[in-house]
Amino acid sequence: MREPVRIGLLGCGIVGGATARILIEHADDIETRVGRPIEIARIAVRDLSKERAVRLSPDRWTDDAWGVVHDPSIDIVVEAIGGIQPARDLVVEAAKAGKHIVTANKELLATLGEEVMGAAEASGVELLFEASVGGGIPIIRPLKESLAGDRVRRVMGIVNGTTNFILTRMSETGESFTEALTEAARLGYTELDPSADVDGHDAAAKLAILASIAFNARVVASDVQTDGISGVGVADIRAAHDLGYEVKLLAVAEVEDGQISARVHPAMLPKTHPLAAVRDVFNAVFVEGSEVGELMFFGRGAGGGPTGSAVVGDIVEIARNISSGASGPGCTCYHDRARIRPPDEALVRYYVVLSVMDQPGVLSAVAGVFAKHGVSIASVRQEGSGEEATLMLITHAASEGHHARTLAELRSLETVKNIDSKMRVTGTAEG
Amino acid sequence: MREPVRIGLLGCGIVGGATARILIEHADDIETRVGRPIEIARIAVRDLSKERAVRLSPDRWTDDAWGVVHDPSIDIVVEAIGGIQPARDLVVEAAKAGKHIVTANKELLATLGEEVMGAAEASGVELLFEASVGGGIPIIRPLKESLAGDRVRRVMGIVNGTTNFILTRMSETGESFTEALTEAARLGYTELDPSADVDGHDAAAKLAILASIAFNARVVASDVQTDGISGVGVADIRAAHDLGYEVKLLAVAEVEDGQISARVHPAMLPKTHPLAAVRDVFNAVFVEGSEVGELMFFGRGAGGGPTGSAVVGDIVEIARNISSGASGPGCTCYHDRARIRPPDEALVRYYVVLSVMDQPGVLSAVAGVFAKHGVSIASVRQEGSGEEATLMLITHAASEGHHARTLAELRSLETVKNIDSKMRVTGTAEG
Repeated sequence: MREPVRIGLLGCGIVGGATARILIEHADDIETRVGRPIEIARIAVRDLSKERAVRLSPDRWTDDAWGVVHDPSIDIVVEAIGGIQPARDLVVEAAKAGKHIVTANKELLATLGEEVMGAAEASGVELLFEASVGGGIPIIRPLKESLAGDRVRRVMGIVNGTTNFILTRMSETGESFTEALTEAARLGYTELDPSADVDGHDAAAKLAILASIAFNARVVASDVQTDGISGVGVADIRAAHDLGYEVKLLAVAEVEDGQISARVHPAMLPKTHPLAAVRDVFNAVFVEGSEVGELMFFGRGAGGGPTGSAVVGDIVEIARNISSGASGPGCTCYHDRARIRPPDEALVRYYVVLSVMDQPGVLSAVAGVFAKHGVSIASVRQEGSGEEATLMLITHAASEGHHARTLAELRSLETVKNIDSKMRVTGTAEG
Repeated sequence: MREPVRIGLLGCGIVGGATARILIEHADDIETRVGRPIEIARIAVRDLSKERAVRLSPDRWTDDAWGVVHDPSIDIVVEAIGGIQPARDLVVEAAKAGKHIVTANKELLATLGEEVMGAAEASGVELLFEASVGGGIPIIRPLKESLAGDRVRRVMGIVNGTTNFILTRMSETGESFTEALTEAARLGYTELDPSADVDGHDAAAKLAILASIAFNARVVASDVQTDGISGVGVADIRAAHDLGYEVKLLAVAEVEDGQISARVHPAMLPKTHPLAAVRDVFNAVFVEGSEVGELMFFGRGAGGGPTGSAVVGDIVEIARNISSGASGPGCTCYHDRARIRPPDEALVRYYVVLSVMDQPGVLSAVAGVFAKHGVSIASVRQEGSGEEATLMLITHAASEGHHARTLAELRSLETVKNIDSKMRVTGTAEG
């Protein structure tokens, strides 16, 4: 019998508990794949008195995470605590102690990725994080390895299951945002404070990680322009349907002329676009490569099984490398500090709904404002209703700055009574 | 400057030509990723007089593939010839000569996979084949590596772009099979002889490879039950739409109780299933894992850019391993000869349309035949039209054998005038 690869597990919540369970239940298969058994040597939890579903003998449990990080017999530390601290200190210390690291911690990587990857590199250990984006969906490894001969131009994802569930309910049942959010909470799909999901910050952290890998550059969460879904109304979704679109919260990162644009916002997406069919709590990441064309990776973005499956996949890879003396591709952010395109310069299309007076010359005045700011109109529809009319416009691509100035001037027009709605349009032939 | 990794390329058709072009155009990026340049040392073609788009100095070109395979300076042989021979002999000889191998050759792997993988293993070289299934879609590596800690229960794919294009046309424009096939030919989506696509044999070869990787067992093309799309009528597709289904040519492999079932056939799939949204020439592979749940990998299944991108991804992985002295997971068919479930025992659901006499007792007689053979009916719809009526039934899951016996006995009923249509139903809650 060959020497086992020894795991120190930090945290036994949803992700840590599932990781332990999978390592125990699939031990035979995993041993076949690695050529050596993988053993959970130590598992650190905050509260030792809490009952746990994981079947491990009592001497493996500890409430001393630092003891695990310093245990000389441990090969791989799995960080399943989450949040920035103490996760950051433990990961950096584990790297210094020569342990390989697997983590699912998106906040840590999207905020201090450079530091923790640097600590791993300095110690010659591996740090893998497949589970940090898209739960069980293999996306980090394909981007790093399968597309290593290609050039990724754009990554566009539905990377937050809670908001996708809410938008799916609004789209399919006509529920309001509040009703759908309540239903999500009832089903256990929301955090105690749903704002990180609803406001797009969870998606922004994941996008920073995706963009870093896809463009070989360091992108952090604060580089991502973020706009949540609380302003999306059922009327917007109905209007989108009428035009052949679906509404999704998209995380979009693009590179052009060496400048990266990264943003999270609700968007209208053609119903024929593969991301439009991603329903409920599912996640998906759509990738555009210069050679491979369009790719999409779809699956469950959260939950113990999927996330634990991704963590164990990383553990198996490191364990194989330990056995063969090899190492993975390591940090692939070759390009120094990424140049982030100023948000105002991002090129987008908009859908805009205006309430206007129903009188001669209004359309001409409105169209004139768009033209003045260099925003070209792709389509327009007018619906009359007594003294008022509604104008629904879809623009061609123009910069966010030009759009903002157009909308500001439209607001000041006497004949424009209100901007009822506006939403970005993406996934069309022009971008 | 570090020593280059030297490639010997066999074949310069669509795949070989694109591979060469990508290696040349992306040389800087690739060198950054590998830490060493990758150089096309030799390129073997049948006809040296043919003009080529690849810009390589004349001394690199040869019409002697064996010379490339035996060239001691070459590290990696890329087989882009296709077909069984001479590809098999060249690959086996390259392995014996100690060269790593990258191939996109699905026929070779689905027929003689055990032999060629064995030859590579015996010589301690790597043989990668990401491009053999799904063109540019990363699917082999995720199945082998990302899901190494999981257990795959089912793989279900749209892995032939030509037939998916034809079915999409029939579904969206109402064209007949022949019209859609003609359109596919006009757009260059068909082979000279379209039968390997249309009859499902191309999909069967890819499924054999997918099943081998997913279930760690050797499955060959002849293990796959194959049924093509030439029998699918526009009326079937319209009926499917009415019931909320789409019709796709599916390649399905499942494992249960250690027995593998692998089959290619047209099937009705609920419109809400992610595979139902895969249109035109796109491919997708849907994977069900015991921990990860549902995953889907989507992209372009053919064409130079996508396939070349996958080949170059494999080349980069091997080049990295050469540099670091590592090796990949190798052949993962741990289980000996797979036990293939007899086709008669595969559990499936059917949609059946019967023309019957419109007289009392017919429905009862028909239902009795289903019951007699242990096939339970999930739903039935009857439409009258004068002396005749049409019965449309969807069954619950039952074995192919039970279905066959049911249909045979229905044919012999005097009140059943014809079996107008039958098609498997899949992707529903019960399978």
